[in-house]
Amino acid sequence: MAYNPAEFRPCTFHDAVPRFHDAGDTPRAFLERCLETIAAREPAVQAWVTLNQVGARAAADAATARYKAGRALSSIDGMPVGIKDMLQTKDMPTEQGTPLLKGVQTLTDSASVLALRQAGAVIIGKTVTTELGMSHPGPTTNPFNADHTPGGSSSGSAAAIGAAMVPATLGTQVVGSIIRPAGFCGNTAIKPTFGAIHRGERLGFSQSHIGVHAGCLADMWAVTYEMAQRAGGDPGHPGLYGEVSPRAPEKPRRLIVMEAEGWSQTDSATMGAFEGILAQLSDAGVEILRRADSPLIEAFEEGIGDSLALSRDLCGYELRWTLENLIERFGSGLSDSMMARLDLARSMTIDDYRAALLQREAAKRAFAAIDGLADGLISLSSVGPAPLMENKAKDSGVTHTTGLPAYNAATSVLGCPAITLPLLAVGGLPVGVQVIGQAHRDAALTGLAAWVAAAIRPVTV
Amino acid sequence: MAYNPAEFRPCTFHDAVPRFHDAGDTPRAFLERCLETIAAREPAVQAWVTLNQVGARAAADAATARYKAGRALSSIDGMPVGIKDMLQTKDMPTEQGTPLLKGVQTLTDSASVLALRQAGAVIIGKTVTTELGMSHPGPTTNPFNADHTPGGSSSGSAAAIGAAMVPATLGTQVVGSIIRPAGFCGNTAIKPTFGAIHRGERLGFSQSHIGVHAGCLADMWAVTYEMAQRAGGDPGHPGLYGEVSPRAPEKPRRLIVMEAEGWSQTDSATMGAFEGILAQLSDAGVEILRRADSPLIEAFEEGIGDSLALSRDLCGYELRWTLENLIERFGSGLSDSMMARLDLARSMTIDDYRAALLQREAAKRAFAAIDGLADGLISLSSVGPAPLMENKAKDSGVTHTTGLPAYNAATSVLGCPAITLPLLAVGGLPVGVQVIGQAHRDAALTGLAAWVAAAIRPVTV
Repeated sequence: MAYNPAEFRPCTFHDAVPRFHDAGDTPRAFLERCLETIAAREPAVQAWVTLNQVGARAAADAATARYKAGRALSSIDGMPVGIKDMLQTKDMPTEQGTPLLKGVQTLTDSASVLALRQAGAVIIGKTVTTELGMSHPGPTTNPFNADHTPGGSSSGSAAAIGAAMVPATLGTQVVGSIIRPAGFCGNTAIKPTFGAIHRGERLGFSQSHIGVHAGCLADMWAVTYEMAQRAGGDPGHPGLYGEVSPRAPEKPRRLIVMEAEGWSQTDSATMGAFEGILAQLSDAGVEILRRADSPLIEAFEEGIGDSLALSRDLCGYELRWTLENLIERFGSGLSDSMMARLDLARSMTIDDYRAALLQREAAKRAFAAIDGLADGLISLSSVGPAPLMENKAKDSGVTHTTGLPAYNAATSVLGCPAITLPLLAVGGLPVGVQVIGQAHRDAALTGLAAWVAAAIRPVTV
Repeated sequence: MAYNPAEFRPCTFHDAVPRFHDAGDTPRAFLERCLETIAAREPAVQAWVTLNQVGARAAADAATARYKAGRALSSIDGMPVGIKDMLQTKDMPTEQGTPLLKGVQTLTDSASVLALRQAGAVIIGKTVTTELGMSHPGPTTNPFNADHTPGGSSSGSAAAIGAAMVPATLGTQVVGSIIRPAGFCGNTAIKPTFGAIHRGERLGFSQSHIGVHAGCLADMWAVTYEMAQRAGGDPGHPGLYGEVSPRAPEKPRRLIVMEAEGWSQTDSATMGAFEGILAQLSDAGVEILRRADSPLIEAFEEGIGDSLALSRDLCGYELRWTLENLIERFGSGLSDSMMARLDLARSMTIDDYRAALLQREAAKRAFAAIDGLADGLISLSSVGPAPLMENKAKDSGVTHTTGLPAYNAATSVLGCPAITLPLLAVGGLPVGVQVIGQAHRDAALTGLAAWVAAAIRPVTV
């Protein structure tokens, strides 16, 4: 199952839709193919916490009838979608990756899930997340090598796409939980602008996002767009801008290489492969700007240079309330890694938090200041391929068994859109390359991503 | 029980604390006095959904022991506090004023409630709210005349203070749900700056606030401050600024009269009483600025001139998701008023919502532009005393049986702090006067409020 980008065939939906209209195919038949793949791959991959086959079949039959009647609800009517188990679903438990919440039924759809249903999507199941969406891992394995992590916290959502089980899944990202696992599993995925997709009951972090893992750009964007149309953005936010289809491919004149905190930690094979991508871009006439090329880029890199610790502090402080309640209620049952996180948060004062907010604002200003220099940014989605599951990098007692978010914390801090593309294979495993835009330019970023995906050959090392 | 501001004695806590130290009194004895008043007044007032006497006595005993040991946790250690039943409490149901959620146990403390417990406060019970905190009323009556509404949605929290049952209660305000009922019930109350007190699980509205109803300024501010120190503000917000005590009284040089949408709807008796307050201020040397005195004030009034409809639209759109889930789950059981709200919201597009957000931003800019003109603003807290309970003003099918928020929607839209003081009696019922400051100047506003409370005689008409 070694990953070969030239041969990998993800599950895609948009290209099946035309045959729903001429009755050569149906959403129900599409779903059954997904369920067959799941049955074949799930014993090793373990992407799912819960599957709702009965509910999914009923929803797929309803979609089939709508296509037959010429009344499809949206561009994703009938699309099977997996939901990260951090988000509530009325018909399945929401366990958030902790045994403390085993079997908890909220009987409520998160805003994004309700929007998917209103668009006709088939909610097929809940995907594995790490503990409370942080770093303590679940059982999911990398679909291209079961000894390796799928990444986290959107572990199951990323692995389900890599295993071609479904065309799309929802993920959430506070630090690096969409883009990193998506890269590890050969996904095309988006972490949209902060606030662009209504987070429903999950508004407790000031830098978390709902995003989409998919097998292709068209499905990724269609799910993102259709959710935003129905759920809107977070309260007080304008929500996602754009149209139902990704923008047509648009070649950038200039791209800035983002080093973030990953550059010095990237293994040489992965760095070599990434430089191969940059060389292709140069050959295609795209000017590549590096850190040394502009004092503004240098200032930007300095602004985001502490994003991992900043995210840890901000999100730890914001998570205290949830953790204190769980401890009060259950006594114990949180991982050592989570307790280490809480200890760090408990040591923070409200003034420490205010200082961290100011640091984040400063990073955003430095990012805004490079807007005019290029049409976007490009970087790796991770410092290398998915590590072995037993690897445990530690940072103040907080484990990172799902890989380091060293290229991801910055875009989470900035709240800007990022799209990862499956452009690299390193040692038989996928590695993602992400393109990054300014806040609210998600739609334009799809045009940039489409051009890169079409013009650049994947690199295998 | 006709209200006489010169005779009304609310329940206050800060003045009892010194006797906790010298053992002349104890938090447990204080609690028992509260429970006696509740037993006497509750049959008519109906302020409480749930009382947790066992839990409250245990907490009061623990506080008593701490004072004895010289180790009080905070300025509110041992203070009995009532919690509006919109906020979750680990030891009592959270029913949100709808029969659909009867008996729902979340086993979780809202962030503000957890903070109160950490400060040693005695969580005595849950106070009645209107349906989901909107306009359909609960059973609570006005403590000064049971034929009249206590106001809403913080009906029980306001009435419990007016009935001198407890020294403080938590309220929430999306449109006018703290300041209006507080004024109707003779409270001293604060709606702080937007984001100043962590809303816990209630982040779904982009202009809602947690605030405090109390019998005096010192208790009001102590509760507000102690919560903010422990819970912080909303995620991404710096939280409340200030010290543990209200500022010393500080005489303003100038105050702006805010007309908002209430001016033309105010009854003549109430307006006469308010003009009596303004005359006292003038006599004391405070310059009173009116709408006609400055084009900036005129622009500000124009900016907030549609705050009721704006709030209805913004909050309706934001509430859709919650309401759709309740309908999906229960089929029916929401009030006609709530269904009318939902119908309005369903007719809105994401672009309508974006336009409403822009309108709110414009109002905030116009407000910021009058900052230099005066030390604060002053207005009535309602268009008159609490209406009779059978009155049902209607606005597009949305009932307002708890009184019109015509002086309140503006400050909710602006997200600025407002403090209401019990300065008027009209026809035997209390009417509040509110002072208003720029965002994040909550602490300075306590100094202004303290000066007004000390320097101005209540007016009875």
